[in-house]
Amino acid sequence: MNVDENIFFYLAIAVSLVSFGVAYYFYHWVKSQKSNNERIAEIGSYIRKGSNTFLKKEYIVLSQFAGVIAVLILLFLPEPIWNGKATDNIGMAVCYLLGTVFSAFAGKVGIEVATIANMKAAEAAKEGIKPSFLVGFRGGSVMGMSVVGTSLLGVTLVYALTHDSSMVLGFSFGASSLALFAKAGGGIFTKTADISADLVGKVELSIPEDDPRNPAVIADNVGDNVGDVAGMGADLFDSNVAAMTAALVIAMSLDKGKGNTNIAMIFCYAALGLLASVIGVLSARMGKKGDPTKALNNSTYITTVIFAGLTAVATWAFDMEWRIWGATAIGLAVGVIIGFASDYFTNDNKKPVRYVAKASNMGPAFTIISGVCYGFLSVLPSMIGIAISAVLAYNICDPIGDGYAMFGISMAAMGMLSIVGMIISNDAYGPIVDNARGLAEMGDLGDEVLDITDQLDSAGNTVKAITKGFAIGAAGLTIISLLGAFMSEVNVAAVEKGLEKITGFDIMNPMVFFGILIGTATPAVFSAMLMLGVDRNAQRMVAEIHRQFKEIPGLKEGKKGVTPEYDKCIEIATTGALRELIPAGLVSIVLTLAVGFVGGVYAIGGFLTGNIASGLLLALFMSNSGGLWDNAKKYVESGHEGGKGSDTHKAAVVGDTVGDPFKDTAGPSLNTQVTVVSLVASIMATLFLSFHIFG
Amino acid sequence: MNVDENIFFYLAIAVSLVSFGVAYYFYHWVKSQKSNNERIAEIGSYIRKGSNTFLKKEYIVLSQFAGVIAVLILLFLPEPIWNGKATDNIGMAVCYLLGTVFSAFAGKVGIEVATIANMKAAEAAKEGIKPSFLVGFRGGSVMGMSVVGTSLLGVTLVYALTHDSSMVLGFSFGASSLALFAKAGGGIFTKTADISADLVGKVELSIPEDDPRNPAVIADNVGDNVGDVAGMGADLFDSNVAAMTAALVIAMSLDKGKGNTNIAMIFCYAALGLLASVIGVLSARMGKKGDPTKALNNSTYITTVIFAGLTAVATWAFDMEWRIWGATAIGLAVGVIIGFASDYFTNDNKKPVRYVAKASNMGPAFTIISGVCYGFLSVLPSMIGIAISAVLAYNICDPIGDGYAMFGISMAAMGMLSIVGMIISNDAYGPIVDNARGLAEMGDLGDEVLDITDQLDSAGNTVKAITKGFAIGAAGLTIISLLGAFMSEVNVAAVEKGLEKITGFDIMNPMVFFGILIGTATPAVFSAMLMLGVDRNAQRMVAEIHRQFKEIPGLKEGKKGVTPEYDKCIEIATTGALRELIPAGLVSIVLTLAVGFVGGVYAIGGFLTGNIASGLLLALFMSNSGGLWDNAKKYVESGHEGGKGSDTHKAAVVGDTVGDPFKDTAGPSLNTQVTVVSLVASIMATLFLSFHIFG
Repeated sequence: MNVDENIFFYLAIAVSLVSFGVAYYFYHWVKSQKSNNERIAEIGSYIRKGSNTFLKKEYIVLSQFAGVIAVLILLFLPEPIWNGKATDNIGMAVCYLLGTVFSAFAGKVGIEVATIANMKAAEAAKEGIKPSFLVGFRGGSVMGMSVVGTSLLGVTLVYALTHDSSMVLGFSFGASSLALFAKAGGGIFTKTADISADLVGKVELSIPEDDPRNPAVIADNVGDNVGDVAGMGADLFDSNVAAMTAALVIAMSLDKGKGNTNIAMIFCYAALGLLASVIGVLSARMGKKGDPTKALNNSTYITTVIFAGLTAVATWAFDMEWRIWGATAIGLAVGVIIGFASDYFTNDNKKPVRYVAKASNMGPAFTIISGVCYGFLSVLPSMIGIAISAVLAYNICDPIGDGYAMFGISMAAMGMLSIVGMIISNDAYGPIVDNARGLAEMGDLGDEVLDITDQLDSAGNTVKAITKGFAIGAAGLTIISLLGAFMSEVNVAAVEKGLEKITGFDIMNPMVFFGILIGTATPAVFSAMLMLGVDRNAQRMVAEIHRQFKEIPGLKEGKKGVTPEYDKCIEIATTGALRELIPAGLVSIVLTLAVGFVGGVYAIGGFLTGNIASGLLLALFMSNSGGLWDNAKKYVESGHEGGKGSDTHKAAVVGDTVGDPFKDTAGPSLNTQVTVVSLVASIMATLFLSFHIFG
Repeated sequence: MNVDENIFFYLAIAVSLVSFGVAYYFYHWVKSQKSNNERIAEIGSYIRKGSNTFLKKEYIVLSQFAGVIAVLILLFLPEPIWNGKATDNIGMAVCYLLGTVFSAFAGKVGIEVATIANMKAAEAAKEGIKPSFLVGFRGGSVMGMSVVGTSLLGVTLVYALTHDSSMVLGFSFGASSLALFAKAGGGIFTKTADISADLVGKVELSIPEDDPRNPAVIADNVGDNVGDVAGMGADLFDSNVAAMTAALVIAMSLDKGKGNTNIAMIFCYAALGLLASVIGVLSARMGKKGDPTKALNNSTYITTVIFAGLTAVATWAFDMEWRIWGATAIGLAVGVIIGFASDYFTNDNKKPVRYVAKASNMGPAFTIISGVCYGFLSVLPSMIGIAISAVLAYNICDPIGDGYAMFGISMAAMGMLSIVGMIISNDAYGPIVDNARGLAEMGDLGDEVLDITDQLDSAGNTVKAITKGFAIGAAGLTIISLLGAFMSEVNVAAVEKGLEKITGFDIMNPMVFFGILIGTATPAVFSAMLMLGVDRNAQRMVAEIHRQFKEIPGLKEGKKGVTPEYDKCIEIATTGALRELIPAGLVSIVLTLAVGFVGGVYAIGGFLTGNIASGLLLALFMSNSGGLWDNAKKYVESGHEGGKGSDTHKAAVVGDTVGDPFKDTAGPSLNTQVTVVSLVASIMATLFLSFHIFG
């Protein structure tokens, strides 16, 4: 490479600013859309208020938590403050807090626009599907652009100012720990409301989805925003930062004393990925045929091609290493393949969904068994995809030199995440149009409009399966490279302490195996705790809904002027989510610390491996089976196998209800859990090396 | 040690013969019990005939399969026949066939006695609970004694005659491959019948369990025998042989040129374990209070103490290594702890079962979600138990010398399985008294007798949870040591071929990681295929039951003289099980071969690790959640949370139905799957070393 590497920092910062500009433009564009339905404005404002209230309360809890962690970092990391340099500890604590603040900001922006875009999209649907689609998509893009812009800006600033891996790790840990709890809290909130609303509304009283008589209906719509918009945003913010961090930590050890070629390449590719997403987002339109799924997928493909092209040009122009470009391209390609595999298992045109719908004829037990089976089967193609991309990236980059193999894997992860701006835009589109559907129903916009919002909503669900596949695959690769980052952190510390360098984690070492077994169990425990939170919470909310229907005269009959006490349900979801969001994440962190202090770095190496493998297994299983059940229910509702109201439909609803916390609470939170655990391990590497009981 | 090691071969053979004597005595004792109810004799003969027919057909399929494998072994293993000594290939093929025949024989004996003991136990219940218990238990003991006697005799003969690890591995592989398919076939049969009978009988028509009008009722009882007696026997036969094999392979490399101290110790301990079980079985009696659960557990504890005492005396008398005794004792102790943990999650006096029963008030979706959560949580204590016992055994034995650490783990596995004779006796007791309950119902023996058989049945279920914990724990340790055995086989081959020795499997090696990811997915795929088999099969059988109720006049009303066509249902279960039993196991084996030939021995090391960890995770999850749902349903049926017939009960039945294939088809088959995969890897080690694409 023959150019000053600082140019790429400027490039990254410039592209971030461009993405903020696009986000700002879209935000005002969405806001400027027409709206004149008072009922929609009223309900929309409830949703907006509920979302903001929850977010505020959640951020208060999280800021206390972050404060405690920041103090601990200040005292103990990267070295106990009495051993090392105090400025390092202060710096790391500040970077940690910066990570949390940036992540929280991105979530807040998402909520801000999503709770306006939902109303605008509902009203735009009166004009047709195309304008409504555009409102929903541009609303989602605000989130996409700000999340990726913020993460790129954050990492660039922290790195450019400190050139210190501990600081970048600290920033990433801040992003992750916030994401862990935001995702968990949002996931518990949204599924508590969703399940309770469905259970009493659809199953017991047979009133339609989003019926305004249902006391939980606003809470349900709030949940879409705080869970799927803010929570998902925090999750992908975290993945993106973690992928860059892993690559950076490895690149720093490669570049030591050799110029910052690899580091420059990371910033170059990340900036071009965001640029590709900006172009993709700007070009998104619905075609003449009016298929929203196609529109979303097309913009994804366009972004993919642009990214591959731009990076190829950059690689050629700056004479960068082609092998690394190859690893990145493999990551991107495998991401698409994993997306297709997820799609096969959750698309209602394919065998699995139809089989489960048919099995539901025999009762809910068969809905569950067959869904679990296909969920299990869905794991294999994605795992093979991740495994093969890791091997290929490793082997492509291995010839470059010592240590490049692992760098290749981290660049494959970056490749998979390069189009994350586009992915988030697609993903945030989902809850916006879902909300729009609810508002259209509650605002009595008529069947034609409902039909349009239904089509938009369904496209959101289909695309979600693909983007989830991407996110999980990227997390898998990121974490393999975090394992590499962990080892390079350990070895830096080992050299400093005059200890022997670690060359690897041998499975035949019983401490490694010990770690693997406990690491394997950890994601299961984490998922169980989150879902039990939903379960407990939903029981409380169902009781409240029952109370309202019993005690408020005229509510069940839909008497004019009688409205349920929406805020009571929002209150229950909020309180419950805040109570349940900390323990599961904390247990994961505590188990990591326990294994580290008992078994040392070898046990942690095993623990991370077990945690990754089992985390991927469960995340894929739960996301896909949940999506499958959801679509099987929709397939039955659209008139197949007995249609709405049949026993088959009831069985399919049971599947959907089970799938709800699978796919929207536990499944996606596992992504973050795996990242947090890996980061905790990397950050604590030095301590684990010095203090442990066995091994 | 100061005694000729041959003495321990004789000891092992002698104790095997003693156990056969006890089995023979019990068999005739059970046969000599009174029986005079014609109805019971008639139905009992249907069950007996159905079981034997299935077993015969299954064995025909399996003998064809075994024949194909034997030919492949003859051609390719331990070396391609054109490279190595032809006698080795012939020997290994013969040992393989011997393993399948011994295992099949033990299964056949179990069915033979179980299908007599069920009738005798039903009639003995007229005299009181004590005599009925004794018939059930002694019937089970025939199975326990013959399985362990056969396995000990088989391994001893093969080893004493050949002194060749390939031959022992061949024998073990024979036992495993038979167990894999016998367990799968039996598991599919039993759950097909059970689910279908429950679905139409209990849920649709609200007729009692075991009602003779139900066309699937005989098939259900046949299923208990072929699944829980023959299948489980094959499973534990396999575990026991595999544990001894792993220990032997490691001991042989330790003992090379140093006298056979360690090998002698293995046979000594195995013989004493069987002896302890013989004493435990002979001493089993119900106390005055008449609690069958206590009686079963007490004999387990007695056996445990006797084993610990006998081995301590032997260790002292023959001046054996105390550290190895320590590893064995740890294995045994941890087995008991794992058993208790399983008990907590499935016992209806404890929180999990009650929580799930309560959650069922809100509908089946909550039964499923809460059961899944507790199933996930139940994984952690057992995983920690296995992990800690492995670390302790390793560290205790490590100071003895090079290679002893892994030997310690294999001896811990043997310790956990030392009392397997007792465990099988307890386990086979379950289906016998379950059948007795059915016969008492169908033979109209009256409520008092039904009450007694219900008590006996319930004790069987409680004890089952504990014994399953033992079996899974032992499988975990065995397979860790099989990993050691795999490595020692690889290195023997590497030395022969002049290649570099393998020192371990480093997680940071991408081929190892590749293997881990695919290995992690494999048990999920295996489970899904088995359960889809049950699902498909049950759909066929339910259609047949519906047909019979529709077409046979007077059947639904219970008109006298009208009997359903039981044999049609047995036929469906048989055909379906035979069709579905091969693919799942075959896919596991094919994946192992694919990974091995693609990635070589490093990928296989990772594959085995991923497969073990995820296999344990899923086996524990599925066994425990299945047991939990079963007991939650029984808890509701005993009058809690609304009792029988309530909506809560219906929800609990959905949980039980989902749990059926979890706990009786997929969960326990995973034990065997993990063993088979490990053995395939060990046997193919040489080939994987020579031929592979990458790595």
